[in-house]
Amino acid sequence: MKSAVGTGSVEAVEAVAAPEVTPTAGVGRVTEAPAAWLRDNCPCEECRDPRSGQKLFQITELPAGLAVGAVAEADDEGTPSVEVRWEPDGHVSLFSVAWLDANRPGLSGGAGDRRTEAGKELWRAADLAGRVPEADWAAYRTDPVERARMLEAVLRLGFALLRDVPRQEGQVVAVAETFGFVRETNYGTVFDVRVEPDPNNLAFTSARITPHTDNPYRDPVPTLQLLHCLENSASGGDSGLVDGFAAAALLREEDPAAFEVLARTPVPFVFRDDRTELRADRPLIEVDPHGRIREVRFNNRSIGTLRLPAAELDAFYAAYRAFGELLLRPGLQLDFRLAPGDCLVFDNTRLLHARTEFEQNGSRHLQGAYADLDGLASSLAVLRRADPLDLLAELFEGPGAEAYLGEQVTMAEHMLQAGALARDAGAPPHLVAAALLHDVGHFSGPVTGEELMAGTDNRHSHTGADLLARWFGPDVTEPVRLHVAAKRYLCAVEPDYRAGLSAASEHTLQVQGGPMTAAEAATFARLPYAADAVAVRRWDEQAKELGADTGDFASFLPLLTSLARG
Amino acid sequence: MKSAVGTGSVEAVEAVAAPEVTPTAGVGRVTEAPAAWLRDNCPCEECRDPRSGQKLFQITELPAGLAVGAVAEADDEGTPSVEVRWEPDGHVSLFSVAWLDANRPGLSGGAGDRRTEAGKELWRAADLAGRVPEADWAAYRTDPVERARMLEAVLRLGFALLRDVPRQEGQVVAVAETFGFVRETNYGTVFDVRVEPDPNNLAFTSARITPHTDNPYRDPVPTLQLLHCLENSASGGDSGLVDGFAAAALLREEDPAAFEVLARTPVPFVFRDDRTELRADRPLIEVDPHGRIREVRFNNRSIGTLRLPAAELDAFYAAYRAFGELLLRPGLQLDFRLAPGDCLVFDNTRLLHARTEFEQNGSRHLQGAYADLDGLASSLAVLRRADPLDLLAELFEGPGAEAYLGEQVTMAEHMLQAGALARDAGAPPHLVAAALLHDVGHFSGPVTGEELMAGTDNRHSHTGADLLARWFGPDVTEPVRLHVAAKRYLCAVEPDYRAGLSAASEHTLQVQGGPMTAAEAATFARLPYAADAVAVRRWDEQAKELGADTGDFASFLPLLTSLARG
Repeated sequence: MKSAVGTGSVEAVEAVAAPEVTPTAGVGRVTEAPAAWLRDNCPCEECRDPRSGQKLFQITELPAGLAVGAVAEADDEGTPSVEVRWEPDGHVSLFSVAWLDANRPGLSGGAGDRRTEAGKELWRAADLAGRVPEADWAAYRTDPVERARMLEAVLRLGFALLRDVPRQEGQVVAVAETFGFVRETNYGTVFDVRVEPDPNNLAFTSARITPHTDNPYRDPVPTLQLLHCLENSASGGDSGLVDGFAAAALLREEDPAAFEVLARTPVPFVFRDDRTELRADRPLIEVDPHGRIREVRFNNRSIGTLRLPAAELDAFYAAYRAFGELLLRPGLQLDFRLAPGDCLVFDNTRLLHARTEFEQNGSRHLQGAYADLDGLASSLAVLRRADPLDLLAELFEGPGAEAYLGEQVTMAEHMLQAGALARDAGAPPHLVAAALLHDVGHFSGPVTGEELMAGTDNRHSHTGADLLARWFGPDVTEPVRLHVAAKRYLCAVEPDYRAGLSAASEHTLQVQGGPMTAAEAATFARLPYAADAVAVRRWDEQAKELGADTGDFASFLPLLTSLARG
Repeated sequence: MKSAVGTGSVEAVEAVAAPEVTPTAGVGRVTEAPAAWLRDNCPCEECRDPRSGQKLFQITELPAGLAVGAVAEADDEGTPSVEVRWEPDGHVSLFSVAWLDANRPGLSGGAGDRRTEAGKELWRAADLAGRVPEADWAAYRTDPVERARMLEAVLRLGFALLRDVPRQEGQVVAVAETFGFVRETNYGTVFDVRVEPDPNNLAFTSARITPHTDNPYRDPVPTLQLLHCLENSASGGDSGLVDGFAAAALLREEDPAAFEVLARTPVPFVFRDDRTELRADRPLIEVDPHGRIREVRFNNRSIGTLRLPAAELDAFYAAYRAFGELLLRPGLQLDFRLAPGDCLVFDNTRLLHARTEFEQNGSRHLQGAYADLDGLASSLAVLRRADPLDLLAELFEGPGAEAYLGEQVTMAEHMLQAGALARDAGAPPHLVAAALLHDVGHFSGPVTGEELMAGTDNRHSHTGADLLARWFGPDVTEPVRLHVAAKRYLCAVEPDYRAGLSAASEHTLQVQGGPMTAAEAATFARLPYAADAVAVRRWDEQAKELGADTGDFASFLPLLTSLARG
């Protein structure tokens, strides 16, 4: 079977083509694995503290000439495993076949760096129509599912909006403490955004503030910002958010040279008042070692004097202006108005925020605080541990077992087949999960799969991905989100593909927008999870066989549980 | 005159060759400057808020086709200036000639990114013999000069040691609050490093901990750590510090391919306990867009499972091991023992810390806290504003006017001449200051310049640089620190250079170690401030002319003051 899985190593391609995992396959995985890597992952109690999970040995303590000696199938209290005896020191490691399989070298996907664009859903304003992530404070506080939904939105979309947060001074700290720790700065633990008689920052005037990130002169920059609206009766003072990652990706597409200039030029950002003198030298667009967008800084107010040769200054200013113009382009900015009690939580390394000028004919008072993404991500991961997968099991047993949606198999059978096809192809766990769960959105949104068949696009890929984010990260949710787009993509780029669609799938293709244009296909192919979505799509199309042998939902539970728990 | 100043633009080379600055030179600078850059730096009240210093316009609001129209000399209340009338919008800017001169495009040096190796003094243990940065808590608390000396040591060397800090629980927070803000984490505001009955981290056992940085699984990582010793009566439990930047630079020298692998490979760092689940994907060695070392992470305990193709895993593990072995190499680690009352403050993005195993035959209890470098750097900059340059003026008027040290001019005349030569060559302000002040160490250390002439190396370049750090950053202090090494370097690489030395300079060359070996010269040439030190050295050698016209120390005060104030 041809597959988009794998990042290119020979081992990975062979693995994907392999049959269902057996202990024998586990022995093969050990033989293929780099020795130092495998030994560094030895789970025994001598190598890894059973209490903290931390490694107990130094990399320098591994013997010279380390190599796998004897390898044998083993059974570790019922878990299929492989025992490895190491040369030259005779150390013995026991690896489960499931671990060897899930972590085999060259496998694509997995968590990766979720701070980069690869872990995000990039958006323009229209993409969020009807799905701005918001929750009522009372529900957020008491319902872990609501809290997880909001925290996940901050990681994926860059923000979440809490409503009806008590309008008390200092309450913004209580909001931050639901997921992490306040980062105190020279502005205090909490800062007041209102008109000040002697402001040390333009934020504390009534002036218009164009899209910007905060505190670029601080290093490390605060990665999260909270803004809690206590009063907003002035005319004007409306809010806006721009996805800086989406804007940077657009710049890379339209003007790659300008993107490169901004990514390689450290810019001095400065702030100075009576008690403070901050300076940080960081690029406007920061990329990771693979060139993926990781942080965006943009703040015209605090860019200091660049010192570069004249030709480089010319190139920088042209690129800076191009990015600035792009950020103001219609359609990017989500406009809204903070009502008293609203608390906005957003990723200050990604989203730019703005406000319109306001008249001093009323009162406008926000309280803000800074915090950090790492604490928020930790809180979300711990919440996901506690959220059982019962709802998914119920979807498979209840509505999924009853709906056919134009095929000869039920939706539950269809999804179980897709998951089994992925598992049997040796796909990594996150893709098995994505294949298994790709259609749950037919049952979880306000518009049903029946209505899709009747001609209304129920956007089930989005509602499904949003539901799955309760338990899973983007490596599971984003292939699901893109699996409808992947059909439109494949119909555009593979002439034979469309002919193989089932009648029902051809029918819904029309409702979903038909094949992509060449430009849409090129954009799709560059998305971080495009290849994974294509793989899911291929299993999706094959998973319509009457009476296939798949195992039931419970047979996938160990895999789903291990993914859900990090 | 040949000069090492400038980073390569034609303008900069011409500027260095230009005569003393005049208003006419200012007009020339405007004509040469990129229009958008110059306009973005307009200091008028319409462009820049006079209260906050923040810019009031967007880069996108500058008119298309921006160009300099009329340019004229001007006098701004006695300050030689240039008035620029802009096309097409008629905006008028007034730039002082001093600003145009100090910021002209292509000029080398300046502040740059002081978080990188270019802003640091890299060290091995022996380099710190007799100069470990330490201060008594009472003096640190009450004397701003002592406080500035310690904060500067943290920025330059990566650490400082405060002695006799009151042995009270929570006192470590008071230490952090002298320069910044505590970063709260899952370990609390303060954490206790002692043997715990059920530790979630190996730090809280009595085990040996090899050199590591803390919390690599956090993003942003805490950039500072404080460790306050409350009790230390156990056998063992000694401390060690390794300069991770120096080690990384050594790796780059010895094994550039391994350095490259570590700089381009994001590594998953993980931490997990009942309430926490952290993960960050960051390289062991992080470089800035110019390839300069900026952050080091090294923690064997928390490296998770890398997922890469097998060949990349092999390359990573070989490089990881090479770096690990290098970090343990004899000579790198500074060993010491924390006494009760000691509080160590160190840069957690650069220094690795270690402790030996200890016996539970006594009590060992440290309290730790995390904080951030930006607040510390801000506090230092504000302290420097308040520290007048009186001591330097006194050195020039007192001992400097009396000492001859083997030349026909006094030390004060010699240094004034060096400063004037740099100024007349159009050198940037930080190099004028370095040339002017390069020999102050003859008067500020425990060993005098007279003793150098008598045959004892007084290491005056180091004592001078350390003194100057009270007021100035590394762009001034490091060329001074290296100006003796620059003589030894030039004697090695320029055959004619040594012949031109004065008799006294030839005499001290021997005391200072003679010409460098080829290997020493190659290492020197790669130091961030090597070119600046060579420039200072050339002015130094020329500045021995009887009766030269230089102006007095006061004539340099405006330049020194502006450098000292950021």
